Amino acid sequence: FEYNGPSMKTEVPGPRSRQLMKQLNVIQNTDAIHFFCNYEDSRGNYLVDVDGNIMLDIYTQIASIPLGYNHPALFKVMQNPQNLSTFINRPALGILPPEHLPEEIERSLLSIAPRNLRKVQTMACGSCSNENAYKSIFIWYRNKERGNSKPSKKELDTCMINQEPGCPVYSILSFMGGFHGRTFGCLATTHSKSIHKLDIPSLDWPIAPFPKLKYPLEEYTRENAQEEARCLEEVEDLIVKYRKKGKNVAGIVIEPIQSEGGDNHASADFFKKLREIARKHGAAFQVDEVQTGGGSTGKFWAHEHWGMDDAADVVSFSKKMLTGGYFHKDELTPDGPYRIFNTWMGDPSKNLLLSEVLNIIKTEKLLDEVQKSGKALLNGLYDLQLRFPHIVSAARGVGTFCAIDAKNEQMRNTLIEKARSKGVVLGGCGERSIRFRPALVFKEHHAHLFLNIFNDILAEL
Amino acid sequence: FEYNGPSMKTEVPGPRSRQLMKQLNVIQNTDAIHFFCNYEDSRGNYLVDVDGNIMLDIYTQIASIPLGYNHPALFKVMQNPQNLSTFINRPALGILPPEHLPEEIERSLLSIAPRNLRKVQTMACGSCSNENAYKSIFIWYRNKERGNSKPSKKELDTCMINQEPGCPVYSILSFMGGFHGRTFGCLATTHSKSIHKLDIPSLDWPIAPFPKLKYPLEEYTRENAQEEARCLEEVEDLIVKYRKKGKNVAGIVIEPIQSEGGDNHASADFFKKLREIARKHGAAFQVDEVQTGGGSTGKFWAHEHWGMDDAADVVSFSKKMLTGGYFHKDELTPDGPYRIFNTWMGDPSKNLLLSEVLNIIKTEKLLDEVQKSGKALLNGLYDLQLRFPHIVSAARGVGTFCAIDAKNEQMRNTLIEKARSKGVVLGGCGERSIRFRPALVFKEHHAHLFLNIFNDILAEL
Ligand code: FES
Repeated sequence: FEYNGPSMKTEVPGPRSRQLMKQLNVIQNTDAIHFFCNYEDSRGNYLVDVDGNIMLDIYTQIASIPLGYNHPALFKVMQNPQNLSTFINRPALGILPPEHLPEEIERSLLSIAPRNLRKVQTMACGSCSNENAYKSIFIWYRNKERGNSKPSKKELDTCMINQEPGCPVYSILSFMGGFHGRTFGCLATTHSKSIHKLDIPSLDWPIAPFPKLKYPLEEYTRENAQEEARCLEEVEDLIVKYRKKGKNVAGIVIEPIQSEGGDNHASADFFKKLREIARKHGAAFQVDEVQTGGGSTGKFWAHEHWGMDDAADVVSFSKKMLTGGYFHKDELTPDGPYRIFNTWMGDPSKNLLLSEVLNIIKTEKLLDEVQKSGKALLNGLYDLQLRFPHIVSAARGVGTFCAIDAKNEQMRNTLIEKARSKGVVLGGCGERSIRFRPALVFKEHHAHLFLNIFNDILAEL
Repeated sequence: FEYNGPSMKTEVPGPRSRQLMKQLNVIQNTDAIHFFCNYEDSRGNYLVDVDGNIMLDIYTQIASIPLGYNHPALFKVMQNPQNLSTFINRPALGILPPEHLPEEIERSLLSIAPRNLRKVQTMACGSCSNENAYKSIFIWYRNKERGNSKPSKKELDTCMINQEPGCPVYSILSFMGGFHGRTFGCLATTHSKSIHKLDIPSLDWPIAPFPKLKYPLEEYTRENAQEEARCLEEVEDLIVKYRKKGKNVAGIVIEPIQSEGGDNHASADFFKKLREIARKHGAAFQVDEVQTGGGSTGKFWAHEHWGMDDAADVVSFSKKMLTGGYFHKDELTPDGPYRIFNTWMGDPSKNLLLSEVLNIIKTEKLLDEVQKSGKALLNGLYDLQLRFPHIVSAARGVGTFCAIDAKNEQMRNTLIEKARSKGVVLGGCGERSIRFRPALVFKEHHAHLFLNIFNDILAEL
């Protein structure tokens, strides 16, 4: 089914890609485009471009392809005539759901619901998932403050003109280096790169430092624990400071591994204590698993590695889940109709494909496979950083969700370019990291194939 | 292909719908659900529910179904094996677009581009379309202010912590009664109902009054012109006032017909003058055609009825367009990569279906059909309001995009319920309006069918 390995015919982007870029550039900014793809011919872990180059894909459309390209099981879903209606009649799920919706959610999303979170709201992408999760948090928090009383006339009137008390000046606490999307609410909690935020008006919400740890974590436990303690202290200080400003922290949002911000890890202990701080101050604790969720850490959710019974009040997802959405506790269910609402509220055609993805993850034991190939990948990276310490360092990861740092940004970009010219698609993150985001069908032999190529590149430098 | 008319077997929601509501209510809030649908059996203008009731649908999933249910042409798109890969390999369009993207956009979206707007950015729903349109506007505005200089270090640093000058306190001016979506940026410009906004923190952005006109517009030209002049004056005052506050108005956003807010119309003259005010004050002029676009006014875009050569700087769309996105002027193109960006940047599988929708609109001359059936519908509503002036009034509309007011909210809800029990699905908007949002395949005979039923309901009251 798959190709045997990369096969390069031209430089990348090749002549056909360059031609198409020119054509598209008349219509929109194309500065971010790497190359144009032939998705029909792509297979499994291999992405084929329009110049006929076959590349091992360890970036997978920014970590959003669960089973690789053109998985036969997904083709079958599309070929089943009974499914076609779902693709051409997109319902307004919030008012007129299809008959099979409850059953479909039970079978798919609820089968992988994080412990303690039995409610789920589907959305269409990571941004609307987080935007609506924040809204749920604000509604819940305000209702708590309000006690048993109903919203006042003043609240109902002032909210129409964006003013207090109807639009309270509550806040969501986020972390420097975090990424939660780029619509206005999400962007107020995103602090990855300045180009993501420059020139866009925002909200004065508290931003805490995320621990800057030394890798491998096992070797620096004492220093790392100190750094984590410093950050936790800052979180509490900010909550108190913002409450004094009248900008109560209604929720805390964090990624289990800061993904866009440079694959920054923290210990289970850090997250446990952070979750406790949220509880202590009456703030909801939201874990954003848009990039980490879906299996690439070797567990379905990255936060499962913390080993907690009650890890979160809200867990948001998208990307590899194909549909967006968020799981949440009962008490975060909106208290009436149309409070959390939009036209589509997700897309049943994505749920349909997700069901089959989950099915394949189970039947093919893909989480076990991820653990195996992830181990091969990380051990290989450890080995390479020992042998090329002047170029790469700080290899880290869980499952295949791995990263390594180059000595600087320029070197990182060079490594990614050289890898591409040898038939491997990689992505960067943070200032000087390379992130590995293969599909769940990435096997040990793919890891070795990549490591050999990467070894050659490092040796040539 | 279609059913011959409504056919009712149970009350709505019927027993099966009620059962499913209970089941879904365990997972999420279901207070907004009308009933559960059998989309497989729905056809054209007829929506079938899970209890076997066949209803004429004049609401079409909140105005989002262009060709009715299960249109044979869309089935063919799904049955073409060459298309399947597009549904199962969703790309990150901003970095790795498929080969056919430029051509596809040229053939579909550019074929219906508003005059003067030759750039288009796809998105995935109305909210991200507007959020990103606003971002483009802020980036453009800030670059204008900056002149030829690059962003300063201070800007690059402060934007990371949500502060000025990196996150400028610019604003988008919107209108009372307007609706532009419900994510945080959109919601700051939405002023439809308090339940849409209550408890959600917002931004202090200027809100102008939207003209409250008397219908039919032709009969009240003088009064209406005065009301429009009052609103335009207020717009200018707000722009000046907010500039003095240091909260420059970077853009103005408006719907050609305020749809959620109650189908509020304004004259072409109003929009022309408003567009001039935007130009005079250096603000971008955005027309939100998420609900009005796609043909239901009898022209492809509602703003075409204004008869202007240069009607807008930005036009956003979604719903019946299946994909979200916005057209814009050259100068609103972001000046670098990753400034307007997210994982998916739309969805080629929706573009594929849109292509076929546009094809059918042309070959079946559906805009002409909309003009005809719209005329029949509006004339019928005029007639009914003459005969039942104590119940309904203010019939208004363009194409099939029509509305009528009930004497109060309770009466409006009663009318919608009674219509449903007789096999017609209608939607409300504003305080006491009924909005008509049929698909583009709604013909004169459907209008008459509805009018007969509505007549009976009014006569029975
Ligand atoms: S904001 Fe998520 S799809 Fe538009």
